[in-house]
Amino acid sequence: MLVQEIIKDIKTPFYLYDFDAIKERFLSIKNSLNGVSSNIFYAVKANSNLSLLKFLKELDSGFDCVSVNEIKRALLIGAKPYKIIFSGVAKSKEDLEFALQEKILYINIENQAELDLLEECAKNLNTVANISIRVNPNVDAKTHPYISTGLKENKFGVSLDVARKMYLKAHKSEYLNPIACHFHIGSNLLDLSPIIQSAKIIKDFVTSLNSAGLNIRFFDIGGGIGVSYLKDEIEPNIKDFFNQIKAMAKDYTICTEPGRYIVANAGYLVTKVLYEKINENKRFVIVDAAMSELIRPSLYNAKHEIICFKDDLANSSKADVVGGVCESGDFLAKDVVLPSLNSQDYLIVKSAGAYGYVMSSNYNSRTKIAEYAIINGKIKLINKAEDFMQMIKGEVECL
Amino acid sequence: MLVQEIIKDIKTPFYLYDFDAIKERFLSIKNSLNGVSSNIFYAVKANSNLSLLKFLKELDSGFDCVSVNEIKRALLIGAKPYKIIFSGVAKSKEDLEFALQEKILYINIENQAELDLLEECAKNLNTVANISIRVNPNVDAKTHPYISTGLKENKFGVSLDVARKMYLKAHKSEYLNPIACHFHIGSNLLDLSPIIQSAKIIKDFVTSLNSAGLNIRFFDIGGGIGVSYLKDEIEPNIKDFFNQIKAMAKDYTICTEPGRYIVANAGYLVTKVLYEKINENKRFVIVDAAMSELIRPSLYNAKHEIICFKDDLANSSKADVVGGVCESGDFLAKDVVLPSLNSQDYLIVKSAGAYGYVMSSNYNSRTKIAEYAIINGKIKLINKAEDFMQMIKGEVECL
Ligand SMILES: Cc1ncc(COP(=O)(O)O)c(C=O)c1O
Ligand SMILES: Cc1ncc(COP(=O)(O)O)c(C=O)c1O
Repeated sequence: MLVQEIIKDIKTPFYLYDFDAIKERFLSIKNSLNGVSSNIFYAVKANSNLSLLKFLKELDSGFDCVSVNEIKRALLIGAKPYKIIFSGVAKSKEDLEFALQEKILYINIENQAELDLLEECAKNLNTVANISIRVNPNVDAKTHPYISTGLKENKFGVSLDVARKMYLKAHKSEYLNPIACHFHIGSNLLDLSPIIQSAKIIKDFVTSLNSAGLNIRFFDIGGGIGVSYLKDEIEPNIKDFFNQIKAMAKDYTICTEPGRYIVANAGYLVTKVLYEKINENKRFVIVDAAMSELIRPSLYNAKHEIICFKDDLANSSKADVVGGVCESGDFLAKDVVLPSLNSQDYLIVKSAGAYGYVMSSNYNSRTKIAEYAIINGKIKLINKAEDFMQMIKGEVECL
Repeated sequence: MLVQEIIKDIKTPFYLYDFDAIKERFLSIKNSLNGVSSNIFYAVKANSNLSLLKFLKELDSGFDCVSVNEIKRALLIGAKPYKIIFSGVAKSKEDLEFALQEKILYINIENQAELDLLEECAKNLNTVANISIRVNPNVDAKTHPYISTGLKENKFGVSLDVARKMYLKAHKSEYLNPIACHFHIGSNLLDLSPIIQSAKIIKDFVTSLNSAGLNIRFFDIGGGIGVSYLKDEIEPNIKDFFNQIKAMAKDYTICTEPGRYIVANAGYLVTKVLYEKINENKRFVIVDAAMSELIRPSLYNAKHEIICFKDDLANSSKADVVGGVCESGDFLAKDVVLPSLNSQDYLIVKSAGAYGYVMSSNYNSRTKIAEYAIINGKIKLINKAEDFMQMIKGEVECL
């Protein structure tokens, strides 16, 4: 699929997404949920490109949003409000009002003060807020601490005890309608048993709430399904996983919020070599992409496979692939085996579809790069590269 | 100076810079260099706001740029080409041509292939390229590994041996004119002795080159002067430092590339509290700024002092100050002592003037925030907040 021919006239660096692979991933989850009532809310934060969202919408995906701007993205590409949910620890009054006015499916509440604020907003708008509460099951997701979110010392959600009080309070309010229960314990889990373990805890919790007269119908297990970044990483068996969830939650509409699983491995950061350089015995391949385009290696010490179109094992050696940003923290991969490369050779950073472009910056005044999609073997521009004047617009207007 | 009155009508979060403090910092370096031929090239990467650059230009600052776009910024605010230098490990052919055409003071060359490429460009343009070579003195800067750049296993510069060969080669070329020698061993050095140590090495190196017939006139010691982020961090004595450099390099024009030292402590990230939250025994103050606006804590584990306008020691306790981005890596400070806070209370993240806004992203579809300056006690907008349509422009055009 990644043919040199297709990309040869495109200015590097750029992101490239294989929409067919994305469809396959989406459908594998959908099929795993066959036979039960379910909702897939794609986690927009992983990759919020509008063409991608539209493509997923056409596959009947819903959208898990963590900001008003993410909701606006979903609405802009024609998503139905009842296919949108809203999470996040820092929703403001204006955010909550917006979500209420747009009549999205439910709002995930993360703390007691937020519940009170939402009640007040609903009252002012003379409406009823459909809510979920994010419950923290205190289960260790065993992933990078930055993306582990289900331990009690994390900022996310509330404990079972607090959640119970909040649910009972919401149940009594004429402006709040608790219809869902939500948890998300972390991202990139190759072993999904912590999610199963959490789901059991939450299932019992919901059962007891419903016995107390509530009517919770949506069982939201969050996202977090891991992907294989490196060859020796084995992806979880999605079918098995959802079978367990289905067995457990058959009385509910199962909601899942996959981000990474849908897009990570379908995305590529395409870059070209500028220089090879050997400092003492250390080999550096300097490329035209950098941490400003893909910060995962630097921020999470994430490993990405890097491939090229050359296959010259005899002349291969270990190298660090680095960008032009002025700090040692700017690297795309360390100690990867690569053949001898020349200026203008391509390098492809694999598995860059999730938490790639969305985390990019303008560091060193680098403009944001373009995004392309491959759909049915054809390449299509889905985000124009930013230009210099666009980047400095707000500053020029103040000069 | 940071008066609640001045900022009370401004939508948070935003960056605020005290231009008077910036001027003071700039002049302290300038004064330290009194009596010798010198150039201060402000490192644009630290904070590239155009109004800031213009302000510094009016103080007679030059500009150290690491991308063509940074050069464009400098030119746009009226900087003279001979006040601009160009560094960076990943300059492309087009970058080098641009720098040659604009006739900037010199280009810092980082490897042999780049030297050859520049020679070729100069030849094609029928001009002579003024160059410096970035020499790696192999001195440990003893700072965060991500911003330590002077060890032989870093991607930056070349060893003394390689540099010598390159200088001799450049000296023979009719298209290359080696006029400067450059090193930069790392950023945020509170102890400047590694720079002094490096300067001695480079000084001897330059002396020997000039004895061999070269005419190197610019002695460029890079940036890296550290600042106090926390109360117990003691800033280096700039006067002493430059006195040592002056004594050593009296036959040269001394060039320095300070970034952080000029702007870090003059900048503030102003944010408002949304929620207080206690998860088990852990206190979180959730604010409207996040890692998308200031990634230093997350990326470098950097510590920033956080202050508020309340002074209630009796009701103070430790808290993590966190933003709304959906990962545990999103924090602005950990375990800082803060009084009990209410929604809408201000928190001010100090020392956020360098490597703050320039590293910000649109993660979670958060739009870039506004930047303000305080000049002579008056506040002035120097960068408009990005709006939603601006952020998605390139994507909408491809829908
Ligand atoms: C609440 C919530 N749902 C879903 C996701 C998506 O996670 P992933 O991309 O690992 O599937 C996240 C990620 O941070 C999240 O915080
Ligand atoms: C070549 C060069 N000069 C100057 C600087 C500025 O450093 P600082 O902000 O620490 O003064 C840097 C920072 O990375 C650099 O790489």
